[in-house]
Amino acid sequence: MSARGAPTHDDPAAHHTDTSRLEAFSDGVIAIAITLLVLEIGVPHVDASGSLSRELLRLWPSYFGYAVSFLTIGVLWINHHAMLKDIGRTDHTLLVLNLILLMLIAFLPFPTAVLAEYMKDGGDELFAATMLYGGTFTLIAVVYGAMWFYAAYVGCLIDEHVTDARIASRTRRYLPGTPFYALTLPLALITPWISLALYAAAAIFYLLPLSE
Amino acid sequence: MSARGAPTHDDPAAHHTDTSRLEAFSDGVIAIAITLLVLEIGVPHVDASGSLSRELLRLWPSYFGYAVSFLTIGVLWINHHAMLKDIGRTDHTLLVLNLILLMLIAFLPFPTAVLAEYMKDGGDELFAATMLYGGTFTLIAVVYGAMWFYAAYVGCLIDEHVTDARIASRTRRYLPGTPFYALTLPLALITPWISLALYAAAAIFYLLPLSE
Amino acid sequence: MSARGAPTHDDPAAHHTDTSRLEAFSDGVIAIAITLLVLEIGVPHVDASGSLSRELLRLWPSYFGYAVSFLTIGVLWINHHAMLKDIGRTDHTLLVLNLILLMLIAFLPFPTAVLAEYMKDGGDELFAATMLYGGTFTLIAVVYGAMWFYAAYVGCLIDEHVTDARIASRTRRYLPGTPFYALTLPLALITPWISLALYAAAAIFYLLPLSE
Amino acid sequence: MSARGAPTHDDPAAHHTDTSRLEAFSDGVIAIAITLLVLEIGVPHVDASGSLSRELLRLWPSYFGYAVSFLTIGVLWINHHAMLKDIGRTDHTLLVLNLILLMLIAFLPFPTAVLAEYMKDGGDELFAATMLYGGTFTLIAVVYGAMWFYAAYVGCLIDEHVTDARIASRTRRYLPGTPFYALTLPLALITPWISLALYAAAAIFYLLPLSE
Repeated sequence: MSARGAPTHDDPAAHHTDTSRLEAFSDGVIAIAITLLVLEIGVPHVDASGSLSRELLRLWPSYFGYAVSFLTIGVLWINHHAMLKDIGRTDHTLLVLNLILLMLIAFLPFPTAVLAEYMKDGGDELFAATMLYGGTFTLIAVVYGAMWFYAAYVGCLIDEHVTDARIASRTRRYLPGTPFYALTLPLALITPWISLALYAAAAIFYLLPLSE
Repeated sequence: MSARGAPTHDDPAAHHTDTSRLEAFSDGVIAIAITLLVLEIGVPHVDASGSLSRELLRLWPSYFGYAVSFLTIGVLWINHHAMLKDIGRTDHTLLVLNLILLMLIAFLPFPTAVLAEYMKDGGDELFAATMLYGGTFTLIAVVYGAMWFYAAYVGCLIDEHVTDARIASRTRRYLPGTPFYALTLPLALITPWISLALYAAAAIFYLLPLSE
Repeated sequence: MSARGAPTHDDPAAHHTDTSRLEAFSDGVIAIAITLLVLEIGVPHVDASGSLSRELLRLWPSYFGYAVSFLTIGVLWINHHAMLKDIGRTDHTLLVLNLILLMLIAFLPFPTAVLAEYMKDGGDELFAATMLYGGTFTLIAVVYGAMWFYAAYVGCLIDEHVTDARIASRTRRYLPGTPFYALTLPLALITPWISLALYAAAAIFYLLPLSE
Repeated sequence: MSARGAPTHDDPAAHHTDTSRLEAFSDGVIAIAITLLVLEIGVPHVDASGSLSRELLRLWPSYFGYAVSFLTIGVLWINHHAMLKDIGRTDHTLLVLNLILLMLIAFLPFPTAVLAEYMKDGGDELFAATMLYGGTFTLIAVVYGAMWFYAAYVGCLIDEHVTDARIASRTRRYLPGTPFYALTLPLALITPWISLALYAAAAIFYLLPLSE
């Protein structure tokens, strides 16, 4: 009964705190980055001959960028959440990888704004904007994958209740992210619209029930 | 006694964590969206013949938009809080619906800024701004209602301690939101001021003690 | 022992959750409002004959406004924290008062930016900016006081472990806020600098150990 | 056993709550400050003869400033986290020191933006921007060190489970921060690039596994 009522050594509790404050800080940064996206949509100005409804419709690249970035970060948050639930302990390397991941996620409002600004222009500008946008997603996928591989196979940080089958299933789930986003970069040489369609499709695909 | 004191399988604990981290993330996004509203109020510039006090008074549409959006999001937060307290488990569909709800709430600073900018002009511009503002509120009400209907009647996610009478009472409470906001859209054809008065009235009505 | 070890009815737990999520949401809004203050300080532009160090020094009203607003919100947060620790339960009225308090706190970056912009000009502009700034502080003090009076004397929401002596001591502590900030408004008729010095003094006074 | 298993007076619980809400608020402010950094990177405008890819490359000072500030704040957060884990109780002085620390951290987006703006110009402007940037880091290091010295040697706020050897080790770890950042200020007289290289090196050094 004493075992139930009181911890006999405080290490597990300390580690638990560690993970939960890491979660809380990551949640904070992700929640803020996802919410700052809206600040990049400027209020349109209507000149004498224009109308506000037409100007609001002309902002569609901003809505597209907002929705794709919001849903992608949201999916990332759900995955990050699931990953940390399987990880029982943190160490210095995991904290550093997580910090780099957050640095890339918090950077996303900038490529989103650049994409929205140059999507209506097309041409070389759209290609450069797509490289920046897709390049950021690719780096995020690389660091996210690195976090899982480090926790699962190098640092032995997985919670002891997690089965090997579940670890393998998670690995299969996280593996395709990096090649998927990396492949959208050369595809943009054909036309950036392919890459942009793939970013939207990836976000929507995950939202469907079958992806569970 | 062991059944009461200690979990025999870790699913319930996992689900509990799930709900509380969902709450924490939602609270974060809602708290940030509500606080970003103020950034849309720009510092007024006074020219040679003007006075700052007059310029500050001329910003009344910004104060109106700020107060109505802040109180509406605040009421939404209180309701969201109450809804999640009744929901005992989450699943993929609920997470996705919640993510779409957050995407719409985090979008609100933009329609609020557009409304504040064009409220003083009136005419067609005010009509378009009201459609954007009321349309966003309508979508929020639709997704909020969908979350409750899914949790209560489709996904069976309600906590087992919640009585059927309470579920029915909640349904009656959440039901009128969508038709109310949807009806403000055609009413704006008469004059947008009717719709705007209704948005303010809806926020204030909830704040009165009798709405409890 | 069952009374100590396990809740016999779930109301207290529900109320506890209520208070802690109210705290978490309030903390979120206050933390964001306090951090957004920096966004109002624009990067100075240096023209041909100027120097950046001189321009950075000329921004002193922005630094003054940032520091006074940051410390005042920080003190408010510490007080809000202490108040909620004494409050054991929440009800609809307390939630509404707290929401109005947060609406006013989240508004503060705007009066701070207006004050910083017009502090270097002096004259009528500074008077109007001081009215806006001090008026917002006064409203915050009024709503903060109202929350405490409602919780302590009307709604009976104080935790049962809090003694009457402590309630009386808290009341004496919270009472002077409203008249202090209200009095700074007519004092600005002599010169706004008196009011501004009082806002700075109030923030610094609280930070001294003797104010404990 | 009852003394160990259940609190006989509520002070320890109250203090625990105190520390955890202090942590939560600090985490919130730090998470927001770190995420706001991206807002200082403006979308580049391309004129007729230019190209977006060249403009995006010309923004390298913004990326440098973003990465150095993000990683430095991140390292600070990890240290702050470790420090608060050793501190068992809070008092008024610690709350005040922590508030001043947060005020300086939340200020960082401004020096970062000034640095990014004037890094490409070089000359006197870069020197002034480096003084502002490094000066803010120096003040942060001073207040951070002061928090630890106060908690460990003056206020006796360290948790009783922390050994004297650990306290001494922490002191050795936190001691060099202030002289390091203070020394970068006169070094900028030779050339600001030395100081900027040291800020980047300090952030990267900590991220290496050997610094654990």
